[in-house]
Amino acid sequence: MIETDILIIGAGPTGLFAVFEAGLLKLKCHIIDALPQIGGQLTELYPKKPIFDIPGFPEVLAGDLIKNHMEQIKQFQPGFTLGERAETIETLEDGTFVVTTDKGTQHHAHAIAIAGGLGSFEPRKPVIEDIEFYEDKGVNYFIKDPELYRGKKVVIAGGGDSALDWSIFLSDVASEVTLIHRRNEFRGALDSVEKAQELKHQGKIKLITPAEVVGLQGAEKLEAIDIEENGAHRRIETDYLIPLFGLTPKLGPIANWGLEIEKNAIKVNNALDYQTNIPGIYAIGDVNTYPGKLKLILCGYHEATLMCQSVYQRMNPGKKYVLKYTTVSGVDGFDGSRKEAEKAVVKSID
Amino acid sequence: MIETDILIIGAGPTGLFAVFEAGLLKLKCHIIDALPQIGGQLTELYPKKPIFDIPGFPEVLAGDLIKNHMEQIKQFQPGFTLGERAETIETLEDGTFVVTTDKGTQHHAHAIAIAGGLGSFEPRKPVIEDIEFYEDKGVNYFIKDPELYRGKKVVIAGGGDSALDWSIFLSDVASEVTLIHRRNEFRGALDSVEKAQELKHQGKIKLITPAEVVGLQGAEKLEAIDIEENGAHRRIETDYLIPLFGLTPKLGPIANWGLEIEKNAIKVNNALDYQTNIPGIYAIGDVNTYPGKLKLILCGYHEATLMCQSVYQRMNPGKKYVLKYTTVSGVDGFDGSRKEAEKAVVKSID
Ligand SMILES: Cc1cc2nc3c(=O)[nH]c(=O)nc-3n(C[C@H](O)[C@H](O)[C@H](O)COP(=O)(O)OP(=O)(O)OC[C@H]3O[C@@H](n4cnc5c(N)ncnc54)[C@H](O)[C@@H]3O)c2cc1C
Ligand SMILES: Cc1cc2nc3c(=O)[nH]c(=O)nc-3n(C[C@H](O)[C@H](O)[C@H](O)COP(=O)(O)OP(=O)(O)OC[C@H]3O[C@@H](n4cnc5c(N)ncnc54)[C@H](O)[C@@H]3O)c2cc1C
Repeated sequence: MIETDILIIGAGPTGLFAVFEAGLLKLKCHIIDALPQIGGQLTELYPKKPIFDIPGFPEVLAGDLIKNHMEQIKQFQPGFTLGERAETIETLEDGTFVVTTDKGTQHHAHAIAIAGGLGSFEPRKPVIEDIEFYEDKGVNYFIKDPELYRGKKVVIAGGGDSALDWSIFLSDVASEVTLIHRRNEFRGALDSVEKAQELKHQGKIKLITPAEVVGLQGAEKLEAIDIEENGAHRRIETDYLIPLFGLTPKLGPIANWGLEIEKNAIKVNNALDYQTNIPGIYAIGDVNTYPGKLKLILCGYHEATLMCQSVYQRMNPGKKYVLKYTTVSGVDGFDGSRKEAEKAVVKSID
Repeated sequence: MIETDILIIGAGPTGLFAVFEAGLLKLKCHIIDALPQIGGQLTELYPKKPIFDIPGFPEVLAGDLIKNHMEQIKQFQPGFTLGERAETIETLEDGTFVVTTDKGTQHHAHAIAIAGGLGSFEPRKPVIEDIEFYEDKGVNYFIKDPELYRGKKVVIAGGGDSALDWSIFLSDVASEVTLIHRRNEFRGALDSVEKAQELKHQGKIKLITPAEVVGLQGAEKLEAIDIEENGAHRRIETDYLIPLFGLTPKLGPIANWGLEIEKNAIKVNNALDYQTNIPGIYAIGDVNTYPGKLKLILCGYHEATLMCQSVYQRMNPGKKYVLKYTTVSGVDGFDGSRKEAEKAVVKSID
């Protein structure tokens, strides 16, 4: 059982920044995310795109913003359960919570902060007979550890940035990379398209377009796929098929936790602390809703900060909280590190 | 009469960021600040100190954060009335407002955003007989334009960073700089103290400690000051006396605008849009109060953003607002400039 003060569901910018604000109050955080990596929409959907409305950044790449967040919170040593979806919640008699993931990992916490964005990202699965049978037996929708594919035959299906970028990446790892796409045209960053083109000419990526995967073969695990190309069918031997047709976020199991839901988002008390109808469970960032709600990154930061204050009060009833400025009081990490401003000297001039 | 959509009172981080959010909604802003420079507390009180809790910045100097804000909003060409205090407000029949400063400058706006922080910064004045008479006739509490002092005799009184830094700066401009302080010890950044010491040894700054200014002389304007040094009195000829004993923020005239005030701050509707009890007047950042309020920079950003949305609705009744992501839609400046993410290409690989 993983023990923590605040269990955060969702490793997007809101959940990550919450770790920092909690740390200032000496509260420990652990984060669960269904994706194998941190960063939420920013990493999954637009890591190389600039954002222009983060306060104080005239321009920042989404991926860099997430890197900055990790740097900012590393002093507070958050724990991570990645690649697992928060599935069920149980309230214990003492008012604390146990959250269990789809893989059975259990987390015990004093408060829950749902920072689930638009929901847990689920892959768009192609409609191919028996595909569920082959999942994790050759068919993967995410690439968690590229080393899995070393020396193997890999087929990637899709026509966007992920399909292009992983084909490029795996061309150095796998023994054979085949990229299959329904259309002749790919949609991606210019340099990705050009790089894929170059690798194709070098024979490092095989390209089959316009084509579709229509069948899967193999007794115990995937051994070959059937494709339809220009109306004709043929079979290709492969160890892996990685369909990369994008992800759709689904509020999913959290919708059944007894929380008030409105327009696929969780209602919170924005007049105070972004708490839901269940005391001790908060919802912050894109996942919540209230009158005037804006699904913007900067709003999640504010919500996360007020949530942490409320959790502090909850865990320290009756104790008066005194706001400290980081500039004045410095920041003490859980790892023993300290950040602080240079002190003024008091000195006579002679 | 200066015309604008949103008149912002206060050029701290909250007021500055509001210009950006307003700009995204095509609303023009004008800012009034009592100080001669922008940046609020960050520039006036701790420009060279690091802040650790701005989201996405593991560390940022207060002065740099303000520079970044100016860079971020320059596309939206805000107007500034600096060195003037917003004094009175009048509501016109059509629901718009006219705000007049202590110097008589008039501003006409559709909405008012008070981002006044802890109040307008007022200098701490030393208790010396007739000092009011000499104000702007030799006695200045702010240094707006250092050129005023070129070739002149200047006495600076004070023992902190401002007194040290301005003595250092003016030692190259004025014909004579005298620094007077009640104690032998100065309190400031180490390099400022060392630099002042060096200039003293070079004879470029005269230092008189421990001493106090006790009288002012001159028929029409300041001609000399009387000081007390170790119990003895003497007179020093000077063109200017600049007392730099720090600034204290005062909510000041805004307290009489008919707004609900609590604990020296303005009550707002935090459940919606940070509007005050007077429709069309908002209060954002440190200057407002509501249950759970935290006087933090990052909270002001959120409040500013929701305020802008509300002003948009107010100015465009019935028009449905559709939130746009800067990453997706880009940012169009009022100066004709455009920021945007690189578009994905759609291209076949051959
Ligand atoms: C193309 C694009 C451009 C954008 N541009 C901007 C912009 O310019 N400015 C701006 O402010 N915003 C922009 N946004 C919106 C911005 O990305 C979101 O506001 C932001 O990501 C919200 O952060 P978050 O942390 O609340 O949630 P998210 O980033 O959505 O992260 C939520 C995380 O929670 C996880 N999760 C959810 N449920 C579960 C569960 N049950 N178990 C485990 N994990 C779960 C998800 O997998 C996800 O990783 C843009 C969005 C897109 C798609
Ligand atoms: C030493 C110190 C360290 C700090 N450290 C941190 C930190 O680490 N993190 C953090 O988040 N916050 C910190 N703060 C607090 C932070 O500075 C404030 O939250 C922030 O400045 C508030 O911004 P603002 O724009 O709302 O107001 P301010 O920065 O106070 O700006 C308000 C401006 O309005 C002007 N004004 C007011 N009334 C009038 C009027 N009637 N007419 C004209 N102008 C007017 C004032 O002159 C002022 O320039 C610190 C503060 C101090 C003093």
